[in-house]
Formats: sequence, C-alpha cells, structure tokens
Amino acid sequence: MSTQFQGVIPPVITPRHADGSIDTASLKNVTKHLIDGGVSGLFVLGSSGEVPYLTNEERELVVSTIADANAGAVPLIVGANEQTTNRVIEEARKVVDLGADAIVVTSMYYAIGNAAETETHFRSIHAAIEKPIFAYDVPVRTHFKLPTDLLVRLGRDGVIAGVKDSSGDDVSFRQLLLAAKDIPNFDIFTGHEVVVDGALLGGAQGVVPGLGNVDPAGYRRLFDAAQAGDWALAAREQDRLADVFEIVYTPNGGVSGGAAGLGAFKTALQVMGVIESNTMSSPMLSLNDSETAAIREILERNGLVEAS
Amino acid sequence: MSTQFQGVIPPVITPRHADGSIDTASLKNVTKHLIDGGVSGLFVLGSSGEVPYLTNEERELVVSTIADANAGAVPLIVGANEQTTNRVIEEARKVVDLGADAIVVTSMYYAIGNAAETETHFRSIHAAIEKPIFAYDVPVRTHFKLPTDLLVRLGRDGVIAGVKDSSGDDVSFRQLLLAAKDIPNFDIFTGHEVVVDGALLGGAQGVVPGLGNVDPAGYRRLFDAAQAGDWALAAREQDRLADVFEIVYTPNGGVSGGAAGLGAFKTALQVMGVIESNTMSSPMLSLNDSETAAIREILERNGLVEAS
Amino acid sequence: MSTQFQGVIPPVITPRHADGSIDTASLKNVTKHLIDGGVSGLFVLGSSGEVPYLTNEERELVVSTIADANAGAVPLIVGANEQTTNRVIEEARKVVDLGADAIVVTSMYYAIGNAAETETHFRSIHAAIEKPIFAYDVPVRTHFKLPTDLLVRLGRDGVIAGVKDSSGDDVSFRQLLLAAKDIPNFDIFTGHEVVVDGALLGGAQGVVPGLGNVDPAGYRRLFDAAQAGDWALAAREQDRLADVFEIVYTPNGGVSGGAAGLGAFKTALQVMGVIESNTMSSPMLSLNDSETAAIREILERNGLVEAS
Amino acid sequence: MSTQFQGVIPPVITPRHADGSIDTASLKNVTKHLIDGGVSGLFVLGSSGEVPYLTNEERELVVSTIADANAGAVPLIVGANEQTTNRVIEEARKVVDLGADAIVVTSMYYAIGNAAETETHFRSIHAAIEKPIFAYDVPVRTHFKLPTDLLVRLGRDGVIAGVKDSSGDDVSFRQLLLAAKDIPNFDIFTGHEVVVDGALLGGAQGVVPGLGNVDPAGYRRLFDAAQAGDWALAAREQDRLADVFEIVYTPNGGVSGGAAGLGAFKTALQVMGVIESNTMSSPMLSLNDSETAAIREILERNGLVEAS
Repeated sequence: MSTQFQGVIPPVITPRHADGSIDTASLKNVTKHLIDGGVSGLFVLGSSGEVPYLTNEERELVVSTIADANAGAVPLIVGANEQTTNRVIEEARKVVDLGADAIVVTSMYYAIGNAAETETHFRSIHAAIEKPIFAYDVPVRTHFKLPTDLLVRLGRDGVIAGVKDSSGDDVSFRQLLLAAKDIPNFDIFTGHEVVVDGALLGGAQGVVPGLGNVDPAGYRRLFDAAQAGDWALAAREQDRLADVFEIVYTPNGGVSGGAAGLGAFKTALQVMGVIESNTMSSPMLSLNDSETAAIREILERNGLVEAS
Repeated sequence: MSTQFQGVIPPVITPRHADGSIDTASLKNVTKHLIDGGVSGLFVLGSSGEVPYLTNEERELVVSTIADANAGAVPLIVGANEQTTNRVIEEARKVVDLGADAIVVTSMYYAIGNAAETETHFRSIHAAIEKPIFAYDVPVRTHFKLPTDLLVRLGRDGVIAGVKDSSGDDVSFRQLLLAAKDIPNFDIFTGHEVVVDGALLGGAQGVVPGLGNVDPAGYRRLFDAAQAGDWALAAREQDRLADVFEIVYTPNGGVSGGAAGLGAFKTALQVMGVIESNTMSSPMLSLNDSETAAIREILERNGLVEAS
Repeated sequence: MSTQFQGVIPPVITPRHADGSIDTASLKNVTKHLIDGGVSGLFVLGSSGEVPYLTNEERELVVSTIADANAGAVPLIVGANEQTTNRVIEEARKVVDLGADAIVVTSMYYAIGNAAETETHFRSIHAAIEKPIFAYDVPVRTHFKLPTDLLVRLGRDGVIAGVKDSSGDDVSFRQLLLAAKDIPNFDIFTGHEVVVDGALLGGAQGVVPGLGNVDPAGYRRLFDAAQAGDWALAAREQDRLADVFEIVYTPNGGVSGGAAGLGAFKTALQVMGVIESNTMSSPMLSLNDSETAAIREILERNGLVEAS
Repeated sequence: MSTQFQGVIPPVITPRHADGSIDTASLKNVTKHLIDGGVSGLFVLGSSGEVPYLTNEERELVVSTIADANAGAVPLIVGANEQTTNRVIEEARKVVDLGADAIVVTSMYYAIGNAAETETHFRSIHAAIEKPIFAYDVPVRTHFKLPTDLLVRLGRDGVIAGVKDSSGDDVSFRQLLLAAKDIPNFDIFTGHEVVVDGALLGGAQGVVPGLGNVDPAGYRRLFDAAQAGDWALAAREQDRLADVFEIVYTPNGGVSGGAAGLGAFKTALQVMGVIESNTMSSPMLSLNDSETAAIREILERNGLVEAS
C-alpha cells in the first residue's frame, strides 16, 4: 500500500560548468524538465547526482537549488550518503534543514558490517530523524545486499517507509514485493531502467531511473500504461526506453563504468539543450565528440531530439 | 522468433532410492507428472538434475530412462556438462546417442577462460555436434557471465539455437531479448522461478524452472495467460508460484544452499507421492522431518496436496 | 631506499568511554604505550582507529589528542579517509593543520572508478597537499586493488612516498617490492600481522599492524631481528605474535568481522590496563565477558599480562 | 613434521605437438629436465598440466608417460580432478592404477557446497582410496576457500596427508602452518612462485611452482638455502626467480589469463629446447613470436638460455 511517494522519481543529475563548478542555472532547467515531463517526485543527491563526488558545500548547493526550482511541486527524497550511522545522521539533519521530505540511506560502506549492525544503523537513524527513511539497496557500491527479511521487519516497525532497489537481484526484489504487500504506507522502487514493466507488473510502487533525467515523459507513459493495466503498451514503451538506454554503452573505453552511464545522461541532456555542459565531477572524464555524436543518433531515432 | 523449443521446459530432478542408487521408477513417474502437467519440453541433466554429482554411468541411465518414459512426447534438451571444450564434445556425443534433441552447454569452468576462448568453445562444439545447442548462462556456477554481444553473434551465425539464462541479471536478460528479437529460430529461456511473468512480458520464449518439477501445471497456466495477453492473471499465478517457491527457504541451516533448493523440490515431490524418497546425491544431506513438515504446509496452502 | 618513515608504525585504536564519547585520557595512554614499546611512527585515523565511524569533530579530536601526547616523538601518518578526490583534499587539509607529517589515501570508494581515474585521484591530491602521501591498498574495503604498475609510476614521479599494503595479495606485494627497489625515498609497509617476517625478508621497510597496539615491543623485536639478519629469531617472534593474534578469533558470532578484530585489540588493551573501556563505535557491539576471558588467557600465555 | 613428500615438486606441464596431440617425447624430456634439476617429486595432472582441458584418454596417457619416464626416481602426486565426490573417486582409482603415489583433490566445483559437505567429500574419498590425499586449496578455480580448521581436523584424523595451497591468502597459510605444526607426517606446500622464501621461513615443507618447470634448479637452490638457514641467500634466489616469473606478464592481451601463464612456461621450455612446441590445449591460444622474443630476453638475463 502506497503513500505520497510513488510513480516516477528520477535521481537528478548534477550539471557542472566546463570549469567544474556547479551549474545552478542548468540544474534548475533539469528540475523544470523533469516536472514538465510528469514526474511525481525527485530523488536528490543520489548516485546519478554524483553524490560521492560532491564536497559538503556542493551538496548543500545542489539541494537548495533543486528545492528552490521545485517550489513544492513534488516531494524531494534526498540522499544522506555517508559511511556510517553517526555520519549519516549529521548529513541527514543538514538535508532535512534544506528541504528534504524524506531521506535515502544505504547500508554502511568502507566499514565492514553485518545484518545486525545494519539493523541498528537504520533504527538509530530513524530515532534521530523525523522524516521518512528509504533504504537504498545498492550492493554494487556498498558491497552489502540488504536482506529481504530485514527490510520487511524495518518496514513493519515503521523504521523505513520504503526501499529503493538497485540490487540487480530481481528474484529478491519480487520476494520483497510479495512479503511487504500488506505493510501500510510502504513504497518499493526499482532503480533499474530497462525492467520497469516487469517490476510494476510484480507490484512495485515506483521507479527511480537515471535515464528518467533524459526521458521523464517516456517513463511517465510507461507508468501510466501499467496503472491502466495496458501491459502490452507498457512493454512497448519499456522496449523503446531500453533502446534509449543504449546511450550508456556508447563510450568506447576511455572512461570508467561510472562515468560512462552518468556521462551519457549528461551528454544527452546537453544535446537536448537542457544543460550547458556535459562536464563530469573530477576525476571522471567527460564524454568526447564522437561519443556525443553516437548519443545524438540514439536520441534522434527515439524522437528525443530532431534529426540534424 | 521461435521454434519447437518454447514454453515450459522444467529441468528434471533425479530421484534416488534411500540407498543412494538412481530410482528409475520414480524418474519415470516424474517424467509422466511433467508431461501430464502440460510441459512442452524436458531439460535433462541440468543443475536441478544434480548433473555435477552423477557419475558417467548414472548420467547415461538418467537420459535413457527419461527418453524411454517420454517416448517422443516432448523434445529432450540435455546438458553436456563438462569442464572444457573437448570434454564437452565427448559428453555431447554420448547424450545425442541416447536421444537428446538438443544439447545445453555452459562456458568452461575450473578452467579460467575469457570471451574469445568462450567463443571458440561454442564454435568448436557446434562444428562437432549436429544437434541444436543452447548456451546456458549460469555464472553462480561457472563464474563467467556470457556477454550479450557474444550470445547475439553466436545466434546470428547459427552456432547456438538459444539461451537458458540463470544469470540473475535481469537487465542484461532484457537487453538480450531486444538484441536477439530478429534472429530466426532463436529461443531465450529464463531459469528463474519467480520472475517469469516479467520475462515473458519482455519477450522470452520459454521458462526452465526447477520449481516446475513440483507444479508444472502452474507454470503452464502462467505461460498460457501470458500467451493470451492476460498479464494480470499471469502475475497472480506468478505470485502464487512465488509462494510455492518458499519451500526452498524451509531448510534451517543444516544443508548447503545447493542442497536446500534441490532438496526442497525432491521433498515436495515425495510429499506429493510422485517419488519414493527425497535422498540427495552424496555429499549433500537430505531434508529432515521438520523441514518436510514445513514444505507440506506450503504445498497445502497452495493446493498442491490435500490438507492432512 | 627508505626515509624517516620505516619500522613499526601501528594504526592507533580510538578508545571510547562506556557512554560512547572519545576517551582522550586513554588515547594518550595508548600513545605512550606505543612510544614506550619502541614504535617508530604512528598511523592515525586508520581502519583500526575506526575512522569510518568517527564524526568530523571526533576525527579532529583524535588527531589533536595524539599529536599532543606524541609531542613530536615520532612521525604522525594520518588517514585522509573520504569517498572521492575533492573530499579527500578537504580532509587532508584538516589533518595537516592538526599536525600530520604525512597522509594516507585510499582509492575512491562507493564511487566506481578505474585505474585512470585512480591515477588522477592521487595526482590531484599530491598537487593540492604538500605533505608526503602514502597510498593505502585495502581492496576488502574499497573493492579496488591498486595496480602494481600504477603504484610504481606514482612512486617514480614523486606523487606518493610509499604504500601501505593491506591487499592480502602477497604475490603482488613481492612484485611491488622488487619493482620499486630503486625508487629513492619510497617506503612499503605491510598491514598484515602474521606475515611480517616474510614481508621484511622480501624487502619491506615497515609494518603497520593493528596488533601492534597490543604488543608494540613484540613487533619491535621482530623488526630488529630482521634488521640484524637473524631470520630464525624473526620467525619465532612472528610465530609468537601469530598466537597473540588469535585474540581476534575469540568472538563467537555475536559481532561483525570488523568489530571482532578491533574489539579484540581494545579488549586486550583494557585487560592490560592501558585503556578504560572496550566500547566500540556504534553500531558495532563490544566484546562480552566470556570473550574478554578468552582474550585474557591468550595474553597470559604470551606474557602480556600476568597470570590471574 | 614431514614425510617423503617435501621439497620442490613442480606441477608438470603437458606438451602438445603443433597439431594438438599430446607430445609424449617432449613430456619425457620435461620429466628428465625436472629430475636433473633436483626436484624431489612431480605433481601430475595439476592446473599447470592443463588437466581441465585433457580428455580422459589424454589424462591416462600423461600419467603413464610420466610414470615411465620417472621410473620410480621421485614420488608422483597426481590430481584426481573432478566436480564432485563420486566422480573424484572414479578418477582417483584410475590414476592410482597408473602409478600415483598420492592423489591431489580440490573441493567440489560447479556444484555449490559448504564446509560440511566438503568435509564429507574428503572423508568419503579417503575411505575409498588407499593412497595419501593432498587437499588442493585453489579458490580462484573452485570458488571455495578450504577453511583452516577443516584442514587441521582432516589432518589430525589422517584423512589428508597435507595441503597444496594456491589460495593467495598468506595470512591463513601462516595460520595453517602454525596450527598443523604438531601433526605427524603432514606436509604443507605453497603453489605461489614468488613468495617461497617467506613460506619456508614460516615452516612450509615444500613448494609446487609452475615456474619450476622452467627453472627447477633455481627452486632447488632456494629450498636448499632455506634448509641451511641461509635466508639472505634464499631471498636473493627468490628475487631472481621473481624476475624469471615476469615471463607470465609478456602476453599482451591476445590470450586469456590462464593461457598467459601456462603459455609462458611452455614457450620458455620451447626456447630452452626442452619441448618441441608451445601449443596450448584448445581453446587456449598459443603465444606468438613477439611474446616468445620477450620471454627469451627474460630467460637470457637470468642465465637460463645463452644470449642469442
């Protein structure tokens, strides 16, 4: 059963000027682009927002800029991304002061914990912070998979308000959906761009796709088709979005895996005229001209920019 | 585009007597149970059939027993499970002589290969064996994920006739479905029990569920609903099957992960009266009485045995 | 060829009062215990110092307390532990202001980088910070193994002054020792407690053992024996220290792997009367009475406390 | 405490003619080269012998050829390399009939086991086979690390006669050496080429280096220096051998990791005139002319071939 947090909630990218400074004008444009595209919430300071690369000052600037541009239009779910419990709590207090309607918390990282410590971690943060908490399951970064039974227990006890799943484990995702079905006001999101139709068919309440920065309206159509029970239409839209997602495979070896995906989103938004530059946070490299041309071609064939 | 190989194709379990010897009578019963349940093919000598634990003599006995019981009713897809290319070819020749309509081949294991060697591996086997070859992607066992572009290239060149995916990577699975859409006579199966509705919505041609040993008719209903475009019904059947799948989580620590899943399937079939004993291949332990009681309860609540 | 940074350089633990606050008096005692034990440097804000669990304020308190207690006796090598380049630079500036003689930097974590980004990472930090930089190779935490050729190149270019190796990869460690043999003023440390004799035989300049908190004099004897070429004596001392290291295996399942090792060091120091409490940073649990008794027994049989 | 199995026991490579067939004449030459180099045993059908790539017929040919060439000169320790318990037992019976003095057994692979099943695995094989059994710990291939306490228990109970460690985990290796110190007739070997001096300093009884095919006399000198307590000499010889080991890093991307190492050993032996061809088992590629030239240079600078 769901609450105010559902639907399409893209993790907002963080534009930079060519000199590396945060580009607040472009960030406002992205926010407008997303709201215009029909999203129902914004996930701020997520991995797609390059949160690990932002200094503390930059993190504050990003949250306040988006909060200004959003002006209460949709809820803001904001990452409190830090290594361990007490550091998360300090970070969470900051983002709540800046306007977060809910916070997103991973398991600890760099630290080597276990399930019991992870439970204490979430319970301690809940005790310290008054906003709803979403557990973010992203083992490719934290190297710890949040156990399904722990998530269900935290949900039943009101410690967490939902889960953002980027685990890459569709089996445990389906089992979480089933096990949490009767928890009131509990929302489960998939973070994977190309399997949203199946996730919604299985009962997910929302989707947090990095690619939603590029095509928010496409994800909104997919979500609406699913809500209407038109699964064939949802699958066709998903297949189209999976083709758009090919932009993340255009980088040809010069950049890291992380920079490839995020760089592709930024480059697409630059090609579409939404942001000024595709500059990445240091030390990530930005995509080059030939990669940009390949991305333009994919955007053209999917109707996201006019043929040049 | 699909061929004769599609639909529900369970990986047949291998029953043993309590003394550890292969129970051919029970194996014939399982075969009949599956065909009666409406399956469209049988996957023989798969992981669910405990193929790594079978001696060469036992492997031959299993294939010939199923071939006899099947009597040509449905196609037999048989695993040629060996460490490296030349060993696979020898194994494949044996199972083809015993009646395999197609063979299933993994990447090399124990050996440490790469993508280029894996390509040579499949091409060499194709050159040596006249039957269709299905690539089996099971990195949890082989520790090598078959790359999507390699699978597509092998498909286009007619080296492989399809893919059985047990990779646990739903993103690459969807991308494979899209990339292979226009290859004629190419069939893609998911090996994951609880995400079949989403896999079929994405365009998969078949499903190879270990749990299909226990409830072949349930998977047939799910497949038929998907074929008819009734995705809500497919999802409901999937949710029911996901609940049946809970039998694999009943073992409480005394057995290995491998023995838990396969042991649960065997125990369920024993409770259902299809096989005589739930004895596992050594050194795997068999499930005990309390685990059996928990499995019975799950079967009862899902209508697979009558309440006791 | 070595510089001022060599010998025994333990990663200083961070004592807490039972209420969880930093215990600066005990921290000063530990510092004195180490210097009295004959160490030639102190590694501050390392994993053994629970750096991921310390708030920013606590980190500053720890560095300034140790700097006060040390009073210039031995060099301070201080961790600048943050997720990415610019965050590391901000952290490094803080600890240099607080008295660091050198800083210790890992590859990025949570962020997903590659070798090229990692090279930029170290070069950017070197350009911003005037103190010597030690690369800390700890893939069990960062999930990225620093490549040997990168470390050698950074060493030759004067970007890094050495390496602290906690990679658990003795083959690459030996190859690093060989490849870096002719770099002037380049120091390589092993972070593994029980293979120090072999590391020194292979040419390592120093050792950074967590267990050195407990028995600094033992490591000093081991180092001195190696310097004197008495390898049989070094091996005997190593075997004794390997037995002391058994304290980390006394925890019986109630705590995480991280809490077990660090908890054992703290508990041993409490038993030895060096610190007041064995309290761990939240959410880690502290070792209990029976675990403490087992640790006491190991300390007794190795002459580190008197038999009770 | 040691038995007949100690010292330098290289894993014998398997030469092939350019047409891919086993080259028995070259295999006899390798055997003679090793015995002349002063080895104290031969490890047959190991990973360096390409055992996963050999058909059953080829495996028999290799063992019988080496047994003939050896003519009882040194003990033969032979791999019984199969997926699971009963398959290992069948394989072990074959190699014992062909002349094995001891067998080498890994944990199960492809199969997914646990520690309890692994214990049953070794105990069942011991019950079936009368020859001494060495446990081979090679998690990079089996993806299961043999636990130290299990190895010690199997040693004390006389189930295994020793351990060949290729785990890459020097910490657990040292702990095994300490824990097994008082087991009579128990021999522990390291399989890592470049850390032999440290392993012997820690108490290992032997070494099974793939590089020992190329320079058996070098490893014999290293072992003799260690036996004589001249550790500085041992370390110098180790450093020289580590430089010879650089041959495995000459392949420049065209071959897999497995083919690089084994291909380098074969290519070196071809350059040295010991074998006819450096042909690898299919689907592994053989090293090319430029890689061969690079290997020749390394051999020349280490005095293993005359300068050309």
